[in-house]
Amino acid sequence: MRTETLRARLLEAQLDLARRRERAVILLLTGHAVTHKGRLVNELNHWLDNRHTEVHALGPSSEERERPYWWRFWRRLPDRGRIGIFIHGWYGDALFARAERRLPPGAFRDRLAEIRAFEAELAAEGVVVLKLWMDIDRPAQRRHLQALQEDPARAWQLSATDWQRHLQHAAIAALGREMRDATAADHAPWRRLDFRDPAAQLQRVGALLHETLAAPPVAPSGVPEGVPGEVAAAPSIRRAEPRVEASLKKASYAARLAEAQGRLAINAREVARRRIPVVLAFEGLDAAGKGGGIHRVTAALDARQYRIHRIAAPSDEELALPWAWRFWRRLPADGRIAIFDRSWYGRVLVERVEGLAPEAAWRRAYAEIREFERQLLAHGTVLGKLFLAISQEEQLRRFEARAASPHKRHKLTDEDWRNRKRWDDYRQAIDEMFARTQAPGAEWALIACDDKRRARLAVLQEVNRRLEMRLASPH
Amino acid sequence: MRTETLRARLLEAQLDLARRRERAVILLLTGHAVTHKGRLVNELNHWLDNRHTEVHALGPSSEERERPYWWRFWRRLPDRGRIGIFIHGWYGDALFARAERRLPPGAFRDRLAEIRAFEAELAAEGVVVLKLWMDIDRPAQRRHLQALQEDPARAWQLSATDWQRHLQHAAIAALGREMRDATAADHAPWRRLDFRDPAAQLQRVGALLHETLAAPPVAPSGVPEGVPGEVAAAPSIRRAEPRVEASLKKASYAARLAEAQGRLAINAREVARRRIPVVLAFEGLDAAGKGGGIHRVTAALDARQYRIHRIAAPSDEELALPWAWRFWRRLPADGRIAIFDRSWYGRVLVERVEGLAPEAAWRRAYAEIREFERQLLAHGTVLGKLFLAISQEEQLRRFEARAASPHKRHKLTDEDWRNRKRWDDYRQAIDEMFARTQAPGAEWALIACDDKRRARLAVLQEVNRRLEMRLASPH
Repeated sequence: MRTETLRARLLEAQLDLARRRERAVILLLTGHAVTHKGRLVNELNHWLDNRHTEVHALGPSSEERERPYWWRFWRRLPDRGRIGIFIHGWYGDALFARAERRLPPGAFRDRLAEIRAFEAELAAEGVVVLKLWMDIDRPAQRRHLQALQEDPARAWQLSATDWQRHLQHAAIAALGREMRDATAADHAPWRRLDFRDPAAQLQRVGALLHETLAAPPVAPSGVPEGVPGEVAAAPSIRRAEPRVEASLKKASYAARLAEAQGRLAINAREVARRRIPVVLAFEGLDAAGKGGGIHRVTAALDARQYRIHRIAAPSDEELALPWAWRFWRRLPADGRIAIFDRSWYGRVLVERVEGLAPEAAWRRAYAEIREFERQLLAHGTVLGKLFLAISQEEQLRRFEARAASPHKRHKLTDEDWRNRKRWDDYRQAIDEMFARTQAPGAEWALIACDDKRRARLAVLQEVNRRLEMRLASPH
Repeated sequence: MRTETLRARLLEAQLDLARRRERAVILLLTGHAVTHKGRLVNELNHWLDNRHTEVHALGPSSEERERPYWWRFWRRLPDRGRIGIFIHGWYGDALFARAERRLPPGAFRDRLAEIRAFEAELAAEGVVVLKLWMDIDRPAQRRHLQALQEDPARAWQLSATDWQRHLQHAAIAALGREMRDATAADHAPWRRLDFRDPAAQLQRVGALLHETLAAPPVAPSGVPEGVPGEVAAAPSIRRAEPRVEASLKKASYAARLAEAQGRLAINAREVARRRIPVVLAFEGLDAAGKGGGIHRVTAALDARQYRIHRIAAPSDEELALPWAWRFWRRLPADGRIAIFDRSWYGRVLVERVEGLAPEAAWRRAYAEIREFERQLLAHGTVLGKLFLAISQEEQLRRFEARAASPHKRHKLTDEDWRNRKRWDDYRQAIDEMFARTQAPGAEWALIACDDKRRARLAVLQEVNRRLEMRLASPH
């Protein structure tokens, strides 16, 4: 399959998973060191809609060490509709502890039995597990280690354990075979991936994940709900597209995008090193391009560092607590980045305009939001608030283009058309929001989005500016 | 008000809070050292239905330190319908850090402003806050410190900071005044409690809490839902009561109860010291006396050490994950005790009998439960599984007695009568459950409950036996 076709099918299968919310999928990568698991996960995550994925690669916290071993994995299980990507996951511990002889053979076999039981339970509950063993032969591993070590720009990627695991290559290979034999199952199959050039590797993982997503023949999907029928949109597309094309030359855009993303990658790494937490809140009118903006940001980030929180209607557990609780619970740990696709500002936007919150509640929210953001800043969090604005004419053009395009149609709902009718109400709510929630360190960045390319560059610039302001200060 | 009347009214007001689920209540105690805050909280918790309370007195975990300061309190907010009791809560940090000059005066005042904003937000969201300043004069504090120090049985209650805070008595008193002035509000009032004899103290706190619970004139409550109308139950009560009375002499029961609870108190303290986690699962037929059994256990425990989890229908967040997730998420940290009022066995009892889970799912659950419990044991958890059984005749007597008693009527629902009709189905499910989930370290204790007093003693004995078996082993 051509790469472009594969990407399109994979994304389609993922969105289908998210829409149905019947199953969750876990992709777990383990195996030898220096097999570029991190890079692979990052690239794969760019292929996917990362609003529905989460990546787990961290060691246990003190709260986790104080609970039974499996608690750390149970609490990280993806909800139905989501994809959880685990680097090493529940295999790394056992594998490396056994290779270093910290774990006796009997305990190793017991752990494998636990893994079998855990994966069987997941399978029975609709969580599909795909496991990748990342393979590399010893000479190749040595060559890559040396190349890394000698490259000043990449030497930081080497961890203390990489050389140790190189010396244990034979043991890890043998244990890996034992592990795979003991835990292979139809519902949680192993695939071996020989180390090869990154593009081919990614293509192979993408194909395996697509196969997993598509595998159990699910009931055929109808037309997504809530889409108005036929909209004669072709002329509008014609009208819209050339205008955007002309806005910023493609080559110039690509160069500036790459430059901004490169800067962001460096800033984000520095933020992780200095353990600075980052919160980015994206608000904006429908079709202004929040998704595209967020995507250009995350394209520059390590998938292990960030998480996207899509804010929709609260769950029943959230309804039993003060409204701000659902934002507090999602705050990132130090050094990590939380991206809110819509945010606590819903309280003074959609909840106000649609009458979902009483007037007293949303009026009160301005002060509550200021205090919430002050708390974040007091902890040393970098806060970026981006509002993506669009003209009424451009919004109509994009709605019509969406309605006419088969693989964008799912992005358009009846609600979008309804919101559009309340344009003036939203306008007023937005103006008041700006006026009442500007504060030092918590300023709004207003991004004009009629021109998509300039908008995306502006989003990246704003995020970079925020991070660099913080990184320039000594503590 | 007489103590008995106050207790009854307080409990009634609490149950009303739990039934309506409109508001949450926070009781916060702070102030001078050696004012017996811990004891007071424990005694108050015995007056309340502790299935709807939670006590928070611990320092921050590593996950909490990695988030903005207020995250630790947001995540501990009680759900609507519940009472959260905080020792020092968000006041202790500021108070003691300022007294020890670790916090400059400006930062102290900033913190007070944050507290005002936080409490206003809670009030607006239906969380009522009552704050108690525990006062004691310096000579009395000194006398109590010395008495504690010289009593070998109680010297462990002294913490390293108690003497330090005695030396800072004047500073703490002055800061306390400033703090109360700055944060007093109609929606979060301060009450000063002079140190006096424990019984009077408790009475006063109980009255204040009752006042708080009863305060905002809420709509008059009707008859609780789901209660069958009139049941001519008087003869049955007569029939039942004398039999129970005769079962075990009252004096003998009281002595044995006190002895078992004393042993449990010592065991629980040792469990906390050795950081052993404890999980107690209570299952049983309706009206067998789970609530009473749990109450006799918690009466011996420090309210800061345990939490009761009532397992009812899963929330929508829980439904999006494998079924066992909702038990994993509630596991206790090391040294703490989680009491499950109904448990993961619902999967093979009510969910089986009522057809809430497909047959394949509940059949699979036996192995999943065995594995879950094995995980707990592998982590060093003490696991107690208690099944409270009752005869069909005795159940009928108790149902009828409940229907006839105004302050027990809320315990009886239509569902209870419905379950009773399926007695044989439950019988079969229970037998199979016993057969399939017995395992070393995870044995069921079957408690015969037709005789309430003997049943309660048997519950305590079983819990003590479990703890002592574990404490006798060296690690």
